[in-house]
Amino acid sequence: MINKIISRLSSLREIMKETKVNACIIPSTDAHMSEYIANHWKCREWISGFDGSAGTIVVTSNKAALWTDSRYFLQAEIQLKGTGIELCKEAIPGTPSMIEYLSSNLKKGDTVGIDGTVFSTQEADSIKNKLISNNINLKNNFFPFDTIWSDREAAPQDQIFVFHEEISGESHASKHKRIMEKLSNVGANSILLSALDEIAWTLNIRGTDVECNPVAVCYSFISEKEKVIFIDKEKLNKESVQYLTENNISILPYNSVDKFLLNLNPEYKVLIDTSKLSTYLNSSINKECTKILGTSPVAILKSIKNKKEIEGFLSAMIKDGVALVKFFIWLEKEIPLGNVTEMLISEKLIEFREEQNLFVGESFGTIAGFNNHGAIVHYHATSESNSTIKGNGLLLIDSGAQYLDGTTDITRTIVIGDASPEVKHDFTIVLKGHISLAMAKFPKGTRGDQLDVLARQALWNEHKNFLHGTGHGIGHFLNVHEGPQSIRMNHNPVTLEPGMVTSNEPGLYITNKYGIRHENLILTVDDGCSDFGSFYKFETLTLFPFDIKGIDVELLSKEEKNWLNNYHQTVYEKLAPNLDCEEKGWLADKTQNI
Amino acid sequence: MINKIISRLSSLREIMKETKVNACIIPSTDAHMSEYIANHWKCREWISGFDGSAGTIVVTSNKAALWTDSRYFLQAEIQLKGTGIELCKEAIPGTPSMIEYLSSNLKKGDTVGIDGTVFSTQEADSIKNKLISNNINLKNNFFPFDTIWSDREAAPQDQIFVFHEEISGESHASKHKRIMEKLSNVGANSILLSALDEIAWTLNIRGTDVECNPVAVCYSFISEKEKVIFIDKEKLNKESVQYLTENNISILPYNSVDKFLLNLNPEYKVLIDTSKLSTYLNSSINKECTKILGTSPVAILKSIKNKKEIEGFLSAMIKDGVALVKFFIWLEKEIPLGNVTEMLISEKLIEFREEQNLFVGESFGTIAGFNNHGAIVHYHATSESNSTIKGNGLLLIDSGAQYLDGTTDITRTIVIGDASPEVKHDFTIVLKGHISLAMAKFPKGTRGDQLDVLARQALWNEHKNFLHGTGHGIGHFLNVHEGPQSIRMNHNPVTLEPGMVTSNEPGLYITNKYGIRHENLILTVDDGCSDFGSFYKFETLTLFPFDIKGIDVELLSKEEKNWLNNYHQTVYEKLAPNLDCEEKGWLADKTQNI
Repeated sequence: MINKIISRLSSLREIMKETKVNACIIPSTDAHMSEYIANHWKCREWISGFDGSAGTIVVTSNKAALWTDSRYFLQAEIQLKGTGIELCKEAIPGTPSMIEYLSSNLKKGDTVGIDGTVFSTQEADSIKNKLISNNINLKNNFFPFDTIWSDREAAPQDQIFVFHEEISGESHASKHKRIMEKLSNVGANSILLSALDEIAWTLNIRGTDVECNPVAVCYSFISEKEKVIFIDKEKLNKESVQYLTENNISILPYNSVDKFLLNLNPEYKVLIDTSKLSTYLNSSINKECTKILGTSPVAILKSIKNKKEIEGFLSAMIKDGVALVKFFIWLEKEIPLGNVTEMLISEKLIEFREEQNLFVGESFGTIAGFNNHGAIVHYHATSESNSTIKGNGLLLIDSGAQYLDGTTDITRTIVIGDASPEVKHDFTIVLKGHISLAMAKFPKGTRGDQLDVLARQALWNEHKNFLHGTGHGIGHFLNVHEGPQSIRMNHNPVTLEPGMVTSNEPGLYITNKYGIRHENLILTVDDGCSDFGSFYKFETLTLFPFDIKGIDVELLSKEEKNWLNNYHQTVYEKLAPNLDCEEKGWLADKTQNI
Repeated sequence: MINKIISRLSSLREIMKETKVNACIIPSTDAHMSEYIANHWKCREWISGFDGSAGTIVVTSNKAALWTDSRYFLQAEIQLKGTGIELCKEAIPGTPSMIEYLSSNLKKGDTVGIDGTVFSTQEADSIKNKLISNNINLKNNFFPFDTIWSDREAAPQDQIFVFHEEISGESHASKHKRIMEKLSNVGANSILLSALDEIAWTLNIRGTDVECNPVAVCYSFISEKEKVIFIDKEKLNKESVQYLTENNISILPYNSVDKFLLNLNPEYKVLIDTSKLSTYLNSSINKECTKILGTSPVAILKSIKNKKEIEGFLSAMIKDGVALVKFFIWLEKEIPLGNVTEMLISEKLIEFREEQNLFVGESFGTIAGFNNHGAIVHYHATSESNSTIKGNGLLLIDSGAQYLDGTTDITRTIVIGDASPEVKHDFTIVLKGHISLAMAKFPKGTRGDQLDVLARQALWNEHKNFLHGTGHGIGHFLNVHEGPQSIRMNHNPVTLEPGMVTSNEPGLYITNKYGIRHENLILTVDDGCSDFGSFYKFETLTLFPFDIKGIDVELLSKEEKNWLNNYHQTVYEKLAPNLDCEEKGWLADKTQNI
């Protein structure tokens, strides 16, 4: 593999030399700024051998370096060994920024090349401005991989399917109307949608092009009268063509989107969401059109779930809870036999979920980490690392499913054998954070970053913390990570609105020892009015008990105990009708009052 | 008075007509964007008769309207009656924005005039852009008041005094060096300081030009070699001239600053803080100079207090606590005699504080509000409203002093007679918020808006809230309100740093019933390191007991009770050595354990 990487780097450098590019930047995303990407776009993995989900490589004529975050330090170190690619650890003091690296390795007048289709306008502009102040140029149309990656896969060609109004809860026509209203509010009359989940939601279609995310690779142009989907004919069947036609959505080839934009009617005032639209497509838009900078209105519309979507979530939660009851009963029986490994857990979770109605697949790759592996935030067991679950310790399982009626994402941390007082202490202070956020009431207009401290206060009091977000949005039979809201330390101006589904997942990771995370999905709901205005609260959607073996009851306040007991009672009431006698007994035990 | 206002408006309209200005905007600030302003700049008050601290008036050829916030709705209604000036209530649905008002009362091609010296660049640019999109022009040099306001006071001419290093803790030379470093970090080599507290801090000078704020009206230009103070000779005595000369600070007349900027050496790269520099002075800068947009580095340097300043604060807190002990003993004795009014409280507070060493004056006008008056957030008793303190109720007293060694700001809410369970409940949930913030520990890099919820959570749980900030910065023998940090619901990117002094002042206001606010000043201090990085906490500086008569002990957690008892013990220990026997006995009673 190392020799392959070295030879790939050398063919990249040949093209760079030919095209007078002195350095190039290869990111980890696709032409739709997706988090999960199809093989066609895995250029950074192909050129470097590093297959973590986040990482950017810079290649100069004689050096190369890869930037990634703490989740992947260890993995990157192993995978880059011998390739000559230097590892630059993000957020570690002393690590140069990509721009610092480029400016110290290039000279004035040099050129940096990027594939402008896989950089958002915002990113490309930011890089360009920083390079310019160092007298370095940016070239947006450097496309080396079609040449040097001989067996590069084509963009995915799976068939799309219609996501009918009976499940989505709103017709495309109605969504179209609401999008046009939002566009009109900011003076725009059209938008090119490029985020795959925004297109799926807007057009009420789904696909299987991307692992775990039920989206289809395509673009869509939306205006009052003209609506276009840019998608290859191979991806459409009779039903989907009929559906698109009935909805007055024209069908054009995927690769014709740039030409379409070049010839756009000059009367269009196009909303440009610079964080989503690639710099290449942005620069393809007819110069005579007016561009209005702003946020895609689909993000906020999509995040506020309608009644049908919420019903779907509730149904998915019951199914997921039932599958987990069966899984955990299996787990408890099997662990003493010594056969359960982290990888087997991932397989078995799929098996139990597959038994449920409308199951489609995982919503992300399961994270099952025992003891020290649990402390690696985005750990995925490999055949080398795969631990057997035995002895004492904590087992962290973060998993989720795509059901046609909803998406799930749940983390439970389970005590295996006995838990020391130290482990119980940490388990409980993380749970206190989870409960504090779950119980929060807050006025209309509150942002997630204002509530984040509730999930961290018990940790901060002991100088502990977790360095990931507390909550992310989640789609309805769509991406498990979606915006625009979040609950985190970083500022995000988006306010929490009734109908938004967000995760509540504080954690604590003690390196080389154990990881703890308690994650449910929470729905923002109206809690009524007072003289001080409208107030909202959260309703917990996820249905599965927390492991009471891990709790140090002394550390919980009366209110926290009440919340937990009430939650466990709800879990029992909602799941029991779908369980057999043995399962009911097991669940009754796990949801007993503390 | 009403006739005077009508005649003043009419002379303004004459000048408008002569100079082809179709409307003008008159704000409430001065040429230094101050919160407290000298009489010279009170044009909005002169033209409208409305003397609230916040309000902006728009005058067209035949209409006039004044915008103010909810604090002043009642007062403005009374003061504007009969003048023909319409009241526009800010943040009330249906109220037009100033721009909406202007565009619906003007026609295309019309001109709006402003005095560009009393509008920040940011504000003026924002108004200009909005007017332009309505095809209305903005004229920056409309100065009618020198003509129509015949008995207008001159800008203040009080003498400045040197604030020696023994009290300020750092020489001007050292501050100058640190400012130049910060400027250099953003590529600038000079700055025109116009915020009066920034100049006072930088030059180690103070003045008495403005009520409550010990600042001097002047400008200052700072670069590596050239340093200038723009101040009239009349304001300088022998000592201050000698001090400025020794520090190589040239002295130029206050009104020559614009000419100085016009002829600025083109090699200067001037940092422009658009929120602080007036649009008039900004546009006066030599066009050949480079302008660098950014935040004045003085704000953050000034906010992080040095050892000497912190010692000064601690000394000021002891003196203020002693004065308050004497005041409250007096109050308790006098109330039963029926002679205590809200206005008398303000007077007596000054009397007791005057007895303390290094007392200079109030740091703001005392707010003393009994029962329903306490619910008016910025209430100031007038001879008409002045209540006598009697019967049962809550008395809210928010007051502060300027001592040469530090500035204080404290609010206590006192139970008069008996408190109902409802009053005690509200008193206690506000106190819970105060204590929760006071006890907070948080990682380096935390913003005030992340911690704000701690002060509100107990209120939000009951659908209650307070609509002002939880905390503002405070200067060292400087302005009682200073940035850049804050603790509030609104986002503020500034992080809390060790050495910052901030207020902790949650409240609750029940209209027509009572107001509650519990305010101390808190110092951010280092709390040590862990595997998760550096952590900070707050140290409460203010020394005076909360009224335990108001507390419903059942509502406090064990930790909250401990905090309160410990705090009260500290108050006793620090104040007792400065009290006589009777006073000690009184304080021991007030600080007894709950």
